[in-house]
Amino acid sequence: MTSLDERFSQLATDHAPGQEVRQTCSDLASLAIGSALPGRAVDFSHGDVDAFTPAPGAFDDFVNGVQMGGKRAYTEYRGDASIRLQLAARLASFIGAPVTGDDDMIITPGSQGALFLALAATVGAGDKVAIVQPDYFANRKLVQFLDAQVVPVRLDYLHGDPAAGLDLPALEHAFRTGVKVFVFSNPNNPTGVVYSQAEIARIGELAQRYGVTVIVDQLYARLCYSGTTYTHLRAVARADHPIITLMGPSKTESLSGYRLGVALAPPAIITRMEQLQAIVSLRAAGYCQSVLQGWFAEPEGWMAQRIALHQAIRDRLYRQFSDAGIKTRLPQAGSYLFLTLPPLRVAPVDFVRLLRYQAQVIVTPGSEFSPHAGDSVRLNFSQDHDAAQNAASRLIAMIARYRQ
Amino acid sequence: MTSLDERFSQLATDHAPGQEVRQTCSDLASLAIGSALPGRAVDFSHGDVDAFTPAPGAFDDFVNGVQMGGKRAYTEYRGDASIRLQLAARLASFIGAPVTGDDDMIITPGSQGALFLALAATVGAGDKVAIVQPDYFANRKLVQFLDAQVVPVRLDYLHGDPAAGLDLPALEHAFRTGVKVFVFSNPNNPTGVVYSQAEIARIGELAQRYGVTVIVDQLYARLCYSGTTYTHLRAVARADHPIITLMGPSKTESLSGYRLGVALAPPAIITRMEQLQAIVSLRAAGYCQSVLQGWFAEPEGWMAQRIALHQAIRDRLYRQFSDAGIKTRLPQAGSYLFLTLPPLRVAPVDFVRLLRYQAQVIVTPGSEFSPHAGDSVRLNFSQDHDAAQNAASRLIAMIARYRQ
Repeated sequence: MTSLDERFSQLATDHAPGQEVRQTCSDLASLAIGSALPGRAVDFSHGDVDAFTPAPGAFDDFVNGVQMGGKRAYTEYRGDASIRLQLAARLASFIGAPVTGDDDMIITPGSQGALFLALAATVGAGDKVAIVQPDYFANRKLVQFLDAQVVPVRLDYLHGDPAAGLDLPALEHAFRTGVKVFVFSNPNNPTGVVYSQAEIARIGELAQRYGVTVIVDQLYARLCYSGTTYTHLRAVARADHPIITLMGPSKTESLSGYRLGVALAPPAIITRMEQLQAIVSLRAAGYCQSVLQGWFAEPEGWMAQRIALHQAIRDRLYRQFSDAGIKTRLPQAGSYLFLTLPPLRVAPVDFVRLLRYQAQVIVTPGSEFSPHAGDSVRLNFSQDHDAAQNAASRLIAMIARYRQ
Repeated sequence: MTSLDERFSQLATDHAPGQEVRQTCSDLASLAIGSALPGRAVDFSHGDVDAFTPAPGAFDDFVNGVQMGGKRAYTEYRGDASIRLQLAARLASFIGAPVTGDDDMIITPGSQGALFLALAATVGAGDKVAIVQPDYFANRKLVQFLDAQVVPVRLDYLHGDPAAGLDLPALEHAFRTGVKVFVFSNPNNPTGVVYSQAEIARIGELAQRYGVTVIVDQLYARLCYSGTTYTHLRAVARADHPIITLMGPSKTESLSGYRLGVALAPPAIITRMEQLQAIVSLRAAGYCQSVLQGWFAEPEGWMAQRIALHQAIRDRLYRQFSDAGIKTRLPQAGSYLFLTLPPLRVAPVDFVRLLRYQAQVIVTPGSEFSPHAGDSVRLNFSQDHDAAQNAASRLIAMIARYRQ
């Protein structure tokens, strides 16, 4: 059993996206080379909801929720029944598998809340949990917090094309040797790669064969670029297999400020997640739940335009970095770009701090996503197009300046 | 180590307030005596935010948050720095002890969120945690979920007057025999009693002597009735002692629909709570955090009037139940009334269901709050005055009907 002190020491958030404001800069002057690079500050640690504003109608839906008063303030812990019903049809059509919204869905405070509930409902102390490297940092941290055992499986995203690049033999070995739960994001965060149909089919097949529960975080599944085929695990797996699908309107739809997430799973798992939500946060903010009424019901063409605008930024940044000889893979979905830095004269973590200090550019260190990605950085390119382009140029200039 | 199945079996929410809608009624017809009692439905399981509307300005503060856009959507995990600073002065003045708002405060999704983080940050598997019986049901459930050991201490609230009635020798015995954390609500939920100055001083003294961390849930501390003296543990304890004070604007201020809570604690504990929040829910909904700007800054006289209106309902219901010979204690604060039912011809849990089925009155079974309170029910009397009075009459009639 791991002590509480040890478990918390693994949860450090010093380099987590959004926490940069808590870092000190007093030692940076001695490391810095050259002078400041002027330009509009860009925070690539998360999307800019001022550049990509919330879906139309979201605020009106919220106001309607407030006007409903007590009925909307105090929903069932799993979320308002009428909203769940409304979402069920839309999610079933998106995913291509049945969803009732009654006993197979829970509304959570953000998809982060859904991820926590999903893992805490299925993982006990000492259990083996397979995670992907690199993947969303909270996957690893949650497994460690639950005092379970992390079994890493590599994603060779740089060379996986046309697949995502998951090491499927290693996954099978992990499953065969006692893994109970497998958690992964698709599209992958931080790389933006999408698992191929063959990979998803194989994951479903192995999970079935070895009785492994699978949690798939599909937060960016709506933001797929042209030429990308997205396969929903829920649609290819057997209906009775324990698959937990996490979705949420935070990212693509710029609704992060309302903190909403949704999980789909077999009834027994949803019941546990609700029992846990009842003591962890009660429910997603009642009034905010109303905002889900407009989700997957945006005006004709709105989502297509949002994708096109992101694709244009993706293409621009990808070309800039490729031209500068910086290794990355073209993201197939989502708004993350994961760069491999060349060898530098300072530690990558210090480079990230210098980047903020000298060039007003915030990125997230790759070490958050994998112990093998210490030389990488993640950029969320859901930003103002020109500002992102200029910030990318400053990042390239900083790399040139600090290159060994 | 307790298995995951066992831990979840302890988390049942079937009788939790607000979950009544998930119960089936098919077996009730065979138990029912007499016909339906007509009247306006009253849900005493929580306050009626339509009867007591949110504090003025709350909605405008929310709208301002939305207009701030990204800056407010993505706050530090511990909450927006400017809001914490603003709250610090107000909370310091309310509590009578210093609060900086920088490293000693975290904003959470509801005070439920704060309670979870406080316990999870201080309690490890196997640790002994003292809880009060009766007290808020999530205290017990959280300790069990964390695989820690519950050490119950009785509150003889019916006979404690003028104190709350905590068994202080039993508390000392618990502390002396290895309790690491003590968690309790003050005002007590479900009874509405307030711990006396002597009780709080003694709790502080014992905690100091035995090195026990204390979590005090002060959710209803603003709603104190005339003649009640409220003592803040944080104000009487030594500044360096690990006291976690939980507050929130959900209840008295009718802001539950925004899901906001606040915890005050020494920096090392706040850091842990933030690390955990980062993987559990990230942060309180950013736009909702703006609503805290009006907290403790309501218009002159607003809170006094709210207290007076609640006191009038309390007095009315207390008289009704006393006149009918139903045992209870006059609540000193908050909006809960805890009734002892006389021996009935049906199990108390079935009586609660019959009450809903026949009389349109929802109450919460006492068994949620203590294994020794199976014959009690909790009423949240923050309701429309007349509706509450009529519902109380129906409850009294139902007790008469089912009395042995």
